[in-house]
Amino acid sequence: MKRVVSFSIGFLFVLSLLAIQLAPKPTAKPNIIVIFMDDMGYGDLGVYGATEYQTPNLDRMASEGIRFTNFMAAQAVCSASRAALLTGCYPNRIGITGALFPNAGKGLNQQETTIAELLKGQGYATGMFGKWHLGDTKEFLPLQHGFDEYVGLPYSNDMWAVDYDGKPVGENDWRKKAFPLLPLLSGNDTLRAITTLDEQAELTGIYTEKAVNFIKKHKKDPFFLYLPHSMPHVPIAASPRFKGKSKQGTYGDVVMELDWSVGEILKALKENGIDDNTLVVFTSDNGPWLNYGNHAGSTGGLREGKGVSTEGGQREPCIVRWPGVAPAGTICNQLASNIDLLPTFAAITNAKLPDHKIDGVSILPLFKGDNQATPRKIFYYYYRRNNLEAVRRGDWKLVLPHEGRSYEGQQPGNDGYPGKAPENTPYPMALYDLRRDPGERYDVQATYPTIVEVLQKIAEEARQDLGDDITKRPGHNVREAGLTAKNK
Amino acid sequence: MKRVVSFSIGFLFVLSLLAIQLAPKPTAKPNIIVIFMDDMGYGDLGVYGATEYQTPNLDRMASEGIRFTNFMAAQAVCSASRAALLTGCYPNRIGITGALFPNAGKGLNQQETTIAELLKGQGYATGMFGKWHLGDTKEFLPLQHGFDEYVGLPYSNDMWAVDYDGKPVGENDWRKKAFPLLPLLSGNDTLRAITTLDEQAELTGIYTEKAVNFIKKHKKDPFFLYLPHSMPHVPIAASPRFKGKSKQGTYGDVVMELDWSVGEILKALKENGIDDNTLVVFTSDNGPWLNYGNHAGSTGGLREGKGVSTEGGQREPCIVRWPGVAPAGTICNQLASNIDLLPTFAAITNAKLPDHKIDGVSILPLFKGDNQATPRKIFYYYYRRNNLEAVRRGDWKLVLPHEGRSYEGQQPGNDGYPGKAPENTPYPMALYDLRRDPGERYDVQATYPTIVEVLQKIAEEARQDLGDDITKRPGHNVREAGLTAKNK
Repeated sequence: MKRVVSFSIGFLFVLSLLAIQLAPKPTAKPNIIVIFMDDMGYGDLGVYGATEYQTPNLDRMASEGIRFTNFMAAQAVCSASRAALLTGCYPNRIGITGALFPNAGKGLNQQETTIAELLKGQGYATGMFGKWHLGDTKEFLPLQHGFDEYVGLPYSNDMWAVDYDGKPVGENDWRKKAFPLLPLLSGNDTLRAITTLDEQAELTGIYTEKAVNFIKKHKKDPFFLYLPHSMPHVPIAASPRFKGKSKQGTYGDVVMELDWSVGEILKALKENGIDDNTLVVFTSDNGPWLNYGNHAGSTGGLREGKGVSTEGGQREPCIVRWPGVAPAGTICNQLASNIDLLPTFAAITNAKLPDHKIDGVSILPLFKGDNQATPRKIFYYYYRRNNLEAVRRGDWKLVLPHEGRSYEGQQPGNDGYPGKAPENTPYPMALYDLRRDPGERYDVQATYPTIVEVLQKIAEEARQDLGDDITKRPGHNVREAGLTAKNK
Repeated sequence: MKRVVSFSIGFLFVLSLLAIQLAPKPTAKPNIIVIFMDDMGYGDLGVYGATEYQTPNLDRMASEGIRFTNFMAAQAVCSASRAALLTGCYPNRIGITGALFPNAGKGLNQQETTIAELLKGQGYATGMFGKWHLGDTKEFLPLQHGFDEYVGLPYSNDMWAVDYDGKPVGENDWRKKAFPLLPLLSGNDTLRAITTLDEQAELTGIYTEKAVNFIKKHKKDPFFLYLPHSMPHVPIAASPRFKGKSKQGTYGDVVMELDWSVGEILKALKENGIDDNTLVVFTSDNGPWLNYGNHAGSTGGLREGKGVSTEGGQREPCIVRWPGVAPAGTICNQLASNIDLLPTFAAITNAKLPDHKIDGVSILPLFKGDNQATPRKIFYYYYRRNNLEAVRRGDWKLVLPHEGRSYEGQQPGNDGYPGKAPENTPYPMALYDLRRDPGERYDVQATYPTIVEVLQKIAEEARQDLGDDITKRPGHNVREAGLTAKNK
């Protein structure tokens, strides 16, 4: 008996060693993946309330990680939000606002530091598969901003000479001149032109395949993978495998395919044995493009959507999965923004921050599950042309007087065509208590005059720093976008 | 070596047997606990978005179970919601609507079947600790409705002759006559009177202690424990241990203490070795009582609150923990209601449903994690005096014309005193797409006339069945509340 017991104890010891061996062992250089949606709304995933289709992979990812409820895009429009994500700066600090059109003659300035450059400096392999939208001439493309590999569209998938129902537009249509070609790039070269909706439907699959191959190839390196999908931006299209699968038309089908893609990425991490040492962040660039009726997503009840500095425009779904670090199945309600990713990744990898001023702060305590940490106390809602439209401190949001682009009362079309643009109306000052009123419905400035004062002071600090076109205040710490030779 | 291997294999076999033994083994008779909040809002827990205080026990419970996002109280007021929960019926079907005042002369009819009676028939021990509110004369009290044990208040904690700041009211105050005594009952007897706010602050602790003792005493039985707290209904009060602990005043302190209480219950299950065979359901009776300013909770952005048939009045936090059955860390967005608990518990325990008509349906598939199941397709929003104010099918809600009790635009006081009652205004018909617009903001009836027709038909079916005071339609399948002898 004695022998059995000692064997058993010995075996138990081996088992525990094995368990220690198998347990998550986060290193100072975890792989980092950022999966970025285009125009996905706050309410578009199962875990954020969607009911007409299933997102099992993202729901599971949330149950294995942290789901954020106050994660803000830096601006409610494509190029600006992407510039912010990659550089850790408010987009107006670096001169990239709004959405860049093809041949815009400008792009992300070489002097900015992207996440890819920062992590490359720490020995990371860097790959990007998807939509860039930070300048479409060679000098601005991803390979010139720290990425080793790149396949994707240089700008939005609606910047082509094709009608919303998939038919090429006539010779005199404005789009014929503005958008001559929708190129699928590989590195700096055009692989081929995307000319039909069916080809658009392949994009999610193409990006996913490239990403999975990249993971496999670099499973022994630390790597940074940036996967900004072109979908569910209009024109939406799902591959044959997902067509008709949801109860919510093409939009639901497309989100289901994106969810599948996330599942493939997470599966690839497991299959390559690096699941326990990889941080995955999932979020979206801005809220749903409500003009497009049922070709747009849902804000889950937040006010308005893309192109507006309301919560519906800027509050995003965000899920962080990091086994052994981010506590499973938890929720983080603290304020954070996509400008905080660069400094967070720097903190994780002990990388030096850029010498120039950035706006992000490390939210690593939140990634580690400290729900009482408040690394981001203040957030500025700038809109393109450097308009300071609102400021936020904790749960208090002061909307400053500006030209409104409100979708209130709009009845978006249901056919996927743009609805009637809302009238421009002045937006008066309003104070919202986002804790009790995330829908920005009840102006409570009369009840809380002291809070208004505090927030007005914060707005003034923003103007001092970054400027404000509305009040004709110049910024003191702003930099410029990069210009092409002919625009210099 | 051979011997080592065979020993090891043998040991592994024993280990696996042990593992099987230790794994959750849900029986047909799990213990069932229902924890019920009073006036807690949809946004009042960390996992539902609260930021000013922490609810670690409930957050963990959600990460170990299912969090519901479309769980409806049957009516937005105390007695009605409790009657519905315990009987599986719309409250107007059984004649209990609104809130019963002391000496109302009526209560829950003996002919109704409560969850306690149903489970008692299956061999369950039954205990209740907390607020009853279904009749305060002996014949209506919990012991006469299937509970073996009871300690608690017979009605709401504000039904006493004490002012909102804790001072006894004067001799001529209306409360002096209406609420002569706030009795803490034990069984059918008054244990003592609650006369001060400090005594109110003990209630959460008292109920919790009784519940923990009940769990210990019945760890070998199957048991049903109903724990309807008196808090956070006004007048709110936290025990010294929690006073000043939150960043949200007394309200936050009180919710933190309730969260502690949930932690004690879950701890007791573990300590008594029955954690794996106990189903715990946590929810609230109705939305926050917004009149009370910062002495009320948050709807998390849903429209209005207690006393109104909006989502803010009736949509409740709901967390279901059932190890081995309810998948951990998941979210259920499907429609369900507190009237569905009785038939669900019946399905779990193979109990026979009552012979009379009930309204609940078993939502056991949702408890088991089937997110595509839609056991409840339709929901009626009745308000007291049998007013059919809205009907819902899936995500579509048709609000029928009725007298409005809107809190829109109200500026609730911040001192814990009732705000000014809102003006009664007519509420016209409106169609809301709750998937895209859970805040009930955009009336889309003009866009979806067919949906309006379908919902009007459903409203007509409700009137045929249960009646409608607004359109002067008598109900065909309604029963009566029980009356005291002198009221018969």
